[in-house]
Amino acid sequence: TLAVSSGSFSPNRWVKLNVGGQIYTTTIDTLCSREPDSMLARMFLQDGSMKPSEKDEQGAYLIDRSPRYFEPIINYLRHGQFVCDANVSVIGVLEEARFFGIYSLIAHLEERLGQQEEPHSDRPLT
Amino acid sequence: TLAVSSGSFSPNRWVKLNVGGQIYTTTIDTLCSREPDSMLARMFLQDGSMKPSEKDEQGAYLIDRSPRYFEPIINYLRHGQFVCDANVSVIGVLEEARFFGIYSLIAHLEERLGQQEEPHSDRPLT
Amino acid sequence: TLAVSSGSFSPNRWVKLNVGGQIYTTTIDTLCSREPDSMLARMFLQDGSMKPSEKDEQGAYLIDRSPRYFEPIINYLRHGQFVCDANVSVIGVLEEARFFGIYSLIAHLEERLGQQEEPHSDRPLT
Amino acid sequence: TLAVSSGSFSPNRWVKLNVGGQIYTTTIDTLCSREPDSMLARMFLQDGSMKPSEKDEQGAYLIDRSPRYFEPIINYLRHGQFVCDANVSVIGVLEEARFFGIYSLIAHLEERLGQQEEPHSDRPLT
Amino acid sequence: TLAVSSGSFSPNRWVKLNVGGQIYTTTIDTLCSREPDSMLARMFLQDGSMKPSEKDEQGAYLIDRSPRYFEPIINYLRHGQFVCDANVSVIGVLEEARFFGIYSLIAHLEERLGQQEEPHSDRPLT
Repeated sequence: TLAVSSGSFSPNRWVKLNVGGQIYTTTIDTLCSREPDSMLARMFLQDGSMKPSEKDEQGAYLIDRSPRYFEPIINYLRHGQFVCDANVSVIGVLEEARFFGIYSLIAHLEERLGQQEEPHSDRPLT
Repeated sequence: TLAVSSGSFSPNRWVKLNVGGQIYTTTIDTLCSREPDSMLARMFLQDGSMKPSEKDEQGAYLIDRSPRYFEPIINYLRHGQFVCDANVSVIGVLEEARFFGIYSLIAHLEERLGQQEEPHSDRPLT
Repeated sequence: TLAVSSGSFSPNRWVKLNVGGQIYTTTIDTLCSREPDSMLARMFLQDGSMKPSEKDEQGAYLIDRSPRYFEPIINYLRHGQFVCDANVSVIGVLEEARFFGIYSLIAHLEERLGQQEEPHSDRPLT
Repeated sequence: TLAVSSGSFSPNRWVKLNVGGQIYTTTIDTLCSREPDSMLARMFLQDGSMKPSEKDEQGAYLIDRSPRYFEPIINYLRHGQFVCDANVSVIGVLEEARFFGIYSLIAHLEERLGQQEEPHSDRPLT
Repeated sequence: TLAVSSGSFSPNRWVKLNVGGQIYTTTIDTLCSREPDSMLARMFLQDGSMKPSEKDEQGAYLIDRSPRYFEPIINYLRHGQFVCDANVSVIGVLEEARFFGIYSLIAHLEERLGQQEEPHSDRPLT
């Protein structure tokens, strides 16, 4: 079954993530391999540094973030490429990369946006 | 479970919103922290100023608004940035920001649209 | 519950519409207030001029039209603004406005398309 | 109920189509009226020329084609207009019009693409 | 029923694929005919070269890849055309074509991108 027990994870186990209401299906291996210091890796590596989030009624881990901008993040974790459609906001993806702590992708996106420090992100509107 | 009791809310509880037929999953904390005077905050802060709306059959709070233009609103409440894809109507997002009373975002969007008073919105077509 | 009894409707009752396979959630009030002569208003005002359509297995009223171009229609009924993303066909929305009989919106869209008579729509391809 | 018995169809009966994994809801009348020689019409006219396809577990007829490019096809069958968003590939829609045998639409799309013979489609890549 | 037994497949059987959380419905014939050496063909041809992946709780085969860029892949397997909307990243589709081993499509996309060797893909960011 897809549900992952709350004990220890086997790396190739399938997990469901509920990102802001949309379900993403992936594996523990995808979440943990490419960027072992990321929030997602720490949630599922079970090294004690971070607990997985609560699950919804269908067993998907709840993440209170944008599903739209999570898509390039999870694809990046799958194959190591940043791929993004022309009409998708790169700043939106960078915001998620920072939240999840995907450091190699943050560096790539900041370079792409032509700025080391992203002023928008350091000074929230509110 | 995800369903929130109708009594008092704990700030980090998960809630589902049914916005015009699409489900968004988020937390009470996201809805209430950034803009405590907004309609969403008052619905869930339980200070008596506004009752939460009815729930659908899966326990999601019903909101009779556009799901498409709600997405940048909920993302703004999550991280304080206005992020919007190139093909999404900013006027559409402003309309929702006004409905939900997200004042800091209204100011930002009106400035972005280069006008203090948005004439379209003061004079509905009908 | 969300299902609406087939007797008389209370104006702020919630309804589900199944438009071409996609579910839209809204209220009787939204469907009936802004344009009382529209097909949607007559379906739900229960004045005897039109019967509501059949319901699907989850209680949503079946409407055999495009969900994509219905979205700006229902948003217009919600707040009186025509809001449309840059890549969405205005001719597609006009087609639906004509089907549903949203007269104020038809006039606005015809003006926007810069023509009083929309030749495409008077002469179907077949 | 929405499920259509395998015997003879009543023209205004509702049907569900599962096109490549996405559900479209429409009526027998829409599928059969505008283009009576099309594959969809022959599937549902029950004249013996073609059997309806298998159904999925929720009673939707299975069609192994692209849902994205089917959308303008079903809209055309509904109202006789070809309506297509700016970013949608017209070649993709033509491919589906040919598969389903919507001859009036094929002619219109070929003219629109400025070519009588569409070379791409006569010479598949493989 | 749609579920495919784990024994031997009949070529025109329907299968469901869960690609990164989105369900695609297709046939064994589509997956195996056009490109018999592809990963998908080997998974379902049952020649012993590759086992089908695990199934989710609704019987769909789990594939840990991007649903967005899988869409042009499955359409290509259906009809032999590469069809892609203007705003969809061709590099994203190429990445999937390589993963699934759709060799005729890889060649076509590399030519289209104007380069024999796609540098991005040979040097992942991490």
